[in-house]
Amino acid sequence: MQRHFVQELEELKATLIRMGSQAEQAIAESIRSLLDRNPALAQQVIAADEAINTLEVEIDNAVVDLLALQQPVAVDLRFILAAQKINNDLERIGDHAVNIAESAIKCAQLAPVERPGEIVQMTTIAKAMLRSAIDAFIHGDAELARSVLQDDDRIDDMNRLTVNELVDLIRADMTFIDQALDLIRVSRNLERVADLATNIAEEVIFVAEAQVVKHHLFSVGKR
Amino acid sequence: MQRHFVQELEELKATLIRMGSQAEQAIAESIRSLLDRNPALAQQVIAADEAINTLEVEIDNAVVDLLALQQPVAVDLRFILAAQKINNDLERIGDHAVNIAESAIKCAQLAPVERPGEIVQMTTIAKAMLRSAIDAFIHGDAELARSVLQDDDRIDDMNRLTVNELVDLIRADMTFIDQALDLIRVSRNLERVADLATNIAEEVIFVAEAQVVKHHLFSVGKR
Repeated sequence: MQRHFVQELEELKATLIRMGSQAEQAIAESIRSLLDRNPALAQQVIAADEAINTLEVEIDNAVVDLLALQQPVAVDLRFILAAQKINNDLERIGDHAVNIAESAIKCAQLAPVERPGEIVQMTTIAKAMLRSAIDAFIHGDAELARSVLQDDDRIDDMNRLTVNELVDLIRADMTFIDQALDLIRVSRNLERVADLATNIAEEVIFVAEAQVVKHHLFSVGKR
Repeated sequence: MQRHFVQELEELKATLIRMGSQAEQAIAESIRSLLDRNPALAQQVIAADEAINTLEVEIDNAVVDLLALQQPVAVDLRFILAAQKINNDLERIGDHAVNIAESAIKCAQLAPVERPGEIVQMTTIAKAMLRSAIDAFIHGDAELARSVLQDDDRIDDMNRLTVNELVDLIRADMTFIDQALDLIRVSRNLERVADLATNIAEEVIFVAEAQVVKHHLFSVGKR
């Protein structure tokens, strides 16, 4: 039973890692489809979201099974509950990639505009945040998780800058309004991806710290 | 022990009801602050979000304790896991109210513009969806939950209409660009509130029927 449980936890981790890399790829490719004006790639991102949604349902079911059949306590319980939340965060990151891909398709039909450089920078940072947050989760590394939190402010600043630049672009030439509004949407979606990576990092810290704080509670729990 | 468990479940329900009505009030007042150009009310909404965040932590802790100490199975387990997700959804609705309140503060400093009528309609529908979703959760009413799902498309359509109207407003008079962009943000935040109410309704159906309605997979759960 115990070995079976350890194995199931490992499977849960492996599925989350897979989902994390799919979400990261979806964000990367949605931005690539925007920059390259490649609606076919954007369509691929939209189609690939179904695989992420399927993984979400799989993980949700695995969580229910683990809790019902293994009745874990202490750090295992916290890990599984965190996995459930991270699962939800990753699914939402997939949705943001779809939003970006939809904007990419619209922009590809319009005249090209000069895109704010921050969008590429934001993508790089958001992807790195997501990868670090998931690594921190897998290895229970609270220090790595804390480093993720620090990047969130930078992304917020860049989003603000980007929106201002795009508003200036509209002021300078009204014909760019549709593209500019879609790029504002892209920027806000990247900001939300960074927020979700931050959520994941906070979960990791919560699991690591609550383990100590709540120890007395679990030591009297039955197993 | 069993009576204690039932009592703890009732307390969890009561806290979620309280959080739900606070979230609903936050959305209503954020929109009120926008329509009345009342930044003081908007500041109240922003300040009140801390209470919602505190409730989120309380409920998260209650969920961990219930799972660790009571080790529930079957419908009780599904109920508790759904409570955890709904908790997260309500906290995010609070964040959307804060976003709307921030836009209200900015708009109050700018010249008034004619606001798309859909914003008031969207607010009414989103609030009703949220209330029905929570009622459905409390009473385990899958039929009421299903009615919530139907309203989500209406909100999406209204959001699209609103964004188009506001883009036309900018085209007609560029001086309105800042207000129009904030109103687009408000409209998108209301759309997200409706999405979150939809998530809650999907959770209710999951608890009641052990069906995953999300992503329209309709797969039957194992227990």
